Amino acid sequence: MDIGFIGLGHMSHGMARNLLKAGHRLTVYNRTREKAKAVAADGAQLAESVADACRGEIVITMLADDEAVEAVTFGKDGILSTLARNAIHLSCSTISVALSDRLTEAHKEAGQHYAAAPVLGRPEAAAAGKLFIVAAGAQQVVHRCQPVFSVIGQRLFEVGKRPSLANLVKLSANFLIAAMIESLGEAIALVRKGGLQSNQYVDIITSTLFNAPAYRTYGAIIAEERYEPAGFPVAMGLKDIRLALAVGETAAVPMPVASIVRDHFLEAEAQGGSNSDWASLARVCARNAGL
Amino acid sequence: MDIGFIGLGHMSHGMARNLLKAGHRLTVYNRTREKAKAVAADGAQLAESVADACRGEIVITMLADDEAVEAVTFGKDGILSTLARNAIHLSCSTISVALSDRLTEAHKEAGQHYAAAPVLGRPEAAAAGKLFIVAAGAQQVVHRCQPVFSVIGQRLFEVGKRPSLANLVKLSANFLIAAMIESLGEAIALVRKGGLQSNQYVDIITSTLFNAPAYRTYGAIIAEERYEPAGFPVAMGLKDIRLALAVGETAAVPMPVASIVRDHFLEAEAQGGSNSDWASLARVCARNAGL
Amino acid sequence: MDIGFIGLGHMSHGMARNLLKAGHRLTVYNRTREKAKAVAADGAQLAESVADACRGEIVITMLADDEAVEAVTFGKDGILSTLARNAIHLSCSTISVALSDRLTEAHKEAGQHYAAAPVLGRPEAAAAGKLFIVAAGAQQVVHRCQPVFSVIGQRLFEVGKRPSLANLVKLSANFLIAAMIESLGEAIALVRKGGLQSNQYVDIITSTLFNAPAYRTYGAIIAEERYEPAGFPVAMGLKDIRLALAVGETAAVPMPVASIVRDHFLEAEAQGGSNSDWASLARVCARNAGL
Amino acid sequence: MDIGFIGLGHMSHGMARNLLKAGHRLTVYNRTREKAKAVAADGAQLAESVADACRGEIVITMLADDEAVEAVTFGKDGILSTLARNAIHLSCSTISVALSDRLTEAHKEAGQHYAAAPVLGRPEAAAAGKLFIVAAGAQQVVHRCQPVFSVIGQRLFEVGKRPSLANLVKLSANFLIAAMIESLGEAIALVRKGGLQSNQYVDIITSTLFNAPAYRTYGAIIAEERYEPAGFPVAMGLKDIRLALAVGETAAVPMPVASIVRDHFLEAEAQGGSNSDWASLARVCARNAGL
Repeated sequence: MDIGFIGLGHMSHGMARNLLKAGHRLTVYNRTREKAKAVAADGAQLAESVADACRGEIVITMLADDEAVEAVTFGKDGILSTLARNAIHLSCSTISVALSDRLTEAHKEAGQHYAAAPVLGRPEAAAAGKLFIVAAGAQQVVHRCQPVFSVIGQRLFEVGKRPSLANLVKLSANFLIAAMIESLGEAIALVRKGGLQSNQYVDIITSTLFNAPAYRTYGAIIAEERYEPAGFPVAMGLKDIRLALAVGETAAVPMPVASIVRDHFLEAEAQGGSNSDWASLARVCARNAGL
Repeated sequence: MDIGFIGLGHMSHGMARNLLKAGHRLTVYNRTREKAKAVAADGAQLAESVADACRGEIVITMLADDEAVEAVTFGKDGILSTLARNAIHLSCSTISVALSDRLTEAHKEAGQHYAAAPVLGRPEAAAAGKLFIVAAGAQQVVHRCQPVFSVIGQRLFEVGKRPSLANLVKLSANFLIAAMIESLGEAIALVRKGGLQSNQYVDIITSTLFNAPAYRTYGAIIAEERYEPAGFPVAMGLKDIRLALAVGETAAVPMPVASIVRDHFLEAEAQGGSNSDWASLARVCARNAGL
Repeated sequence: MDIGFIGLGHMSHGMARNLLKAGHRLTVYNRTREKAKAVAADGAQLAESVADACRGEIVITMLADDEAVEAVTFGKDGILSTLARNAIHLSCSTISVALSDRLTEAHKEAGQHYAAAPVLGRPEAAAAGKLFIVAAGAQQVVHRCQPVFSVIGQRLFEVGKRPSLANLVKLSANFLIAAMIESLGEAIALVRKGGLQSNQYVDIITSTLFNAPAYRTYGAIIAEERYEPAGFPVAMGLKDIRLALAVGETAAVPMPVASIVRDHFLEAEAQGGSNSDWASLARVCARNAGL
Repeated sequence: MDIGFIGLGHMSHGMARNLLKAGHRLTVYNRTREKAKAVAADGAQLAESVADACRGEIVITMLADDEAVEAVTFGKDGILSTLARNAIHLSCSTISVALSDRLTEAHKEAGQHYAAAPVLGRPEAAAAGKLFIVAAGAQQVVHRCQPVFSVIGQRLFEVGKRPSLANLVKLSANFLIAAMIESLGEAIALVRKGGLQSNQYVDIITSTLFNAPAYRTYGAIIAEERYEPAGFPVAMGLKDIRLALAVGETAAVPMPVASIVRDHFLEAEAQGGSNSDWASLARVCARNAGL
């Protein structure tokens, strides 16, 4: 397939390379051109503009936030005005439910298709083609994206026809991770004050009840206080919690744990930790306990 | 070994049976005598009194709360006044750090030994001898309990010489479970309002990031709203959170998520749900969202 | 002075009438024309359009939210494009800090002036000319508005040159009221369960430590459960808390009590109480306690 | 009347002196005898023991916490065993509802009377005889204490027959003060980050909506960051919130704002601020915002 790929961060590199390996023709665009070069070296065509990346059957966007997706979609010579009729905008970014709904409408009016397929997993999983994909959109649109999904992910979860449902699941999953970090942070502060070592405690917890990837990954980061450089920074975590709280507000769903996570992200930022890993929520817990 | 066993609830039955199967001589005592009969049928001696269960090398207590442990230990003809010098009181109950410290002192003064060994796992794991054991106490005391641990559990974690450290770990682990239930409850309320089915969501979450026993067990209970009969009731969950918050207060550790869990347990009780499973925290979240 | 007045709700009527009584020439505009007629009967000119209300030295806006202020300011033939050079847009609405900053810039570029002067007080105070005014803006601009302030308010607080500072104070004041309602709600639920009557409790509290207008007003509403019709509805309270939390987020200020208030407003909305008085936060507290 | 007075802290001195001035015969007891001497100089008899202070018609206790009241009441030669039949134990301390209930029972069984009459106000009000008194107990018992109330307070609120109701009101009032401090702390952190001075903000707030003694007193302390020496220390504030939360737990009343206050008191303690004024909750808010 002819595929456009807009946005080349840590996650995207692995995804793009796997698409190339599978034999797809890839045209990649990144605002900072330098970042696209590595993928070009692997065989991707370098696009000069967003429009250049919109000449195929599918254009994938994998960008940092709503603003970035809005810019490439609604901007002059953006996706909306250059993508062919019947072609697909496949959004893998973690964006707001509201923007996803707006994109659905806009592409429909333009005679194009839109589906959302945010991914669960870290850069290593992306590189290995082992991401989990949560997709939503019209059935035949999601079906047409299958060749992409089968290459970048190990499993696909289809959650419905309304694309923003997939974004909702992704936001809620990031909330669950942040809530887990916060809870671990509180528990670890408690046992440390009692005289236990963090790593011994994390070992117990992750060998028994919480023998799950997320607990092992973040438990280790917290035990080693390895918050810099960030795998996923506080600023991005705060953004995702803000989006989760925003849907909760629209839907009248109180989320008190999400509010605490938000407050602790703000506290981390107030201490200058905006670029630290979001696992540094645990550092906020420790600091508030005088550790 | 000659072992006494005081307190025969859901968990204890499995533990006691496994001790019998391994060839230990067991004398069991339960306030409500009826409950002890099942174990007697399996070969245990029925004790007429607490004192009767204190004639061996070890007496195990597995009781509901501080009050029950205090009663059998400090009461007239209780463990403290009847256990032989050098014999061991092995406390498997989930009790407060303060009581565990007090028991340590009291047994020391009486020339006896005390170790704490709360267990992680549910009744099925107890029956299968697959519990996880978190033990703390003087090294040779814990060593002498090894024949017990090897029969009831699949793995032992020794956390130090001060017995109450094991209780601290157990309380913090129960806090982590409750925090997980609360977080899942908020996330599920959010996605349900967006139009997703609980079970589909739980399937996604537990197949990916949170592929852990605790998430699968409680995710299923929440998705099916199977809160009665309770595996572990709200009243017991509230008790454990109260004990965790109490240590946190003594040690000056703020635990905002624990406070939310506490408030939602109270809300569950105010709605008459004191005997429902503690997973019904998720029902509180749903209710507050108008579901 | 020739004064335009845009937006005629409960508060505005009293303000407008007092301006007329003081001899000012008033041109009033309201989207729903019906509402402007009462003031017209008192001597105000009825404007056919926003532009009609922008022909004087000052145009006052007193509207429900950011969206309404944006519409009349930036819309076609709005304030920005029709107000004379050197004339003043005096914004009395409770709007976001971000919008106030944006208005400051936009009017400056257009050669016009902008000042913010949100008011504290209820409709009765507005009718009596007894409002408190919190104003911010360039000194000579605020000075030129003095004839307005002296008529509508009993006291003026100038808080600085940057107009949005006044909005910040107003948002924080509304947060303090909401926090007070929530706290009263929790306290009253507690004493009611102990057997005390709400009104007796409110009498004690407001006769002693909290002998303040806000406590007396809201204490009475809560004691009598007089939540409908709303003096100030939940939906508006939620909006103001959202704006306060948004500034807090930009400035990295955790506000845990504001988060609780937000969650309880959402709970009120989820129960269908969007149009009830914001004092119904206390009803949420009572409900969660099983009352 | 012959009155015993046990416990001579800041508040008690004023109360005791006013009783002396009104012509009552006062026998005072304090564990640290030194503190009782100042009142002795004003004409009070110095008691050698608790029993010495129990020979009159009424014995007043004004002590720091449950433990102190338990010690003088239930201890050897304590109030319970030395007070005459029909005499009254009048408890003015801020103690738990549970202890107040226990005292009610114990004195009843001993043929004595018990009433609770905690006071609202600060040392200056105590010195001026201007306290507010919240009393509960059997009507004729409260009536017999009238000569005391009329001398120490400006107004009496009778809240019922069950003495612990008065303690409940007192605890809830202290919660309301702490909630107010916390809310002010959050609001002040917010406006300070916006560029406003604390004192200007406090002036606005206390001149308008919150023109109440509690807001003026604590607003000034916060604006001037005058947290040492403490009028009322964090440790005592934490104790009262713990007691309020404990009643809330017994009665199934969720109190999320009280939980936040608790967490911030713990944070203050973790920073070494146990002896600072409880208004230093605002310092915690400022610190968490990076101020």
